[in-house]
Amino acid sequence: MIGRMTRWGPDAGGRLIKSALELYAKRGYDQTTVAEIAQRAGLTERTFFRHFADKKEVLFAGSSNLRDLLVSAVAGAPPSASPIEAVAGGLLAAGVVFDEERREFSRRRQSVIAANAELRERELIKMATLASAIADTLRRRGVPNPAASLAAEAGIAVFRVAFERWVHPENELGWSELVRGSLAELKVLVVS
Amino acid sequence: MIGRMTRWGPDAGGRLIKSALELYAKRGYDQTTVAEIAQRAGLTERTFFRHFADKKEVLFAGSSNLRDLLVSAVAGAPPSASPIEAVAGGLLAAGVVFDEERREFSRRRQSVIAANAELRERELIKMATLASAIADTLRRRGVPNPAASLAAEAGIAVFRVAFERWVHPENELGWSELVRGSLAELKVLVVS
Repeated sequence: MIGRMTRWGPDAGGRLIKSALELYAKRGYDQTTVAEIAQRAGLTERTFFRHFADKKEVLFAGSSNLRDLLVSAVAGAPPSASPIEAVAGGLLAAGVVFDEERREFSRRRQSVIAANAELRERELIKMATLASAIADTLRRRGVPNPAASLAAEAGIAVFRVAFERWVHPENELGWSELVRGSLAELKVLVVS
Repeated sequence: MIGRMTRWGPDAGGRLIKSALELYAKRGYDQTTVAEIAQRAGLTERTFFRHFADKKEVLFAGSSNLRDLLVSAVAGAPPSASPIEAVAGGLLAAGVVFDEERREFSRRRQSVIAANAELRERELIKMATLASAIADTLRRRGVPNPAASLAAEAGIAVFRVAFERWVHPENELGWSELVRGSLAELKVLVVS
């Protein structure tokens, strides 16, 4: 089993995620079964279903962690921070997960998602959920509507653009540079 | 049949949309069948399926028209228009559909969608499709990436906020005032 340890450690969930992504990338998402993912990870289907609702959710296991990172950072921004500054702090905090070690995984995950309509829809829902969690957090900071929604959605637009650049094969910049750069571009665009 | 004519005129598609929305609002989306919608419109199920793929699509029949309005206006903006000005022109052009006569329909549609997770997801996909159509149009105008995506997504954030205000029971402002107001708020937010 040691040889199968992943960067997520030897836990079953991490091994299942790794195996699933390898199979999705190699033979396509639709062509892969839960049985095959479990087998590749050296685990049973039953263990798979203890960790994930279905083969789609394997690709979205990190969503709640990402949401928590964003939400904590937005909530914890200094009281003097403007709504967009608080959101920017949240996006930068996500750099904890979007590190060098993660990049190759994210790249492959992105290719798998781009190739499948059902996964693209699930990704849209994930992004909308993040936007709405950020908007809720801003409201708890006292930001009224619609400023809370606008700042959250602008933040998610910046997130998407930064993420697309980050996974781009030719990109060499780190997450925080990409977030700062995309935010600066949004500012220029919106006022021009 | 005259008595059943709708604001969309006496066409079968319009009658089906009206009947569907009435039933969804009255007894819930999940509890309504295609047979009941057709019957209420004085039509057959077969006619229903000539117009719509399923009972969900009835609520999204206007999406392609909205997309065409947005895209034509963005494409037709003066060459000197900045990306965000072109997008603003698109949002304002959508006022052709978001007029007083439409407001009550949109309000009811919005309530039905808000009450159902599957419909909310479908609405997310619709908004993402609009954003991506606008981004494509900007790219055809020569706007590079990621400016095209950022301007399109910022525009869709403004669209959402303007739309939520427009359907709000206490709102008395028209579409173009709401678009201009929401865009002005976004500018203040993003640079603050």
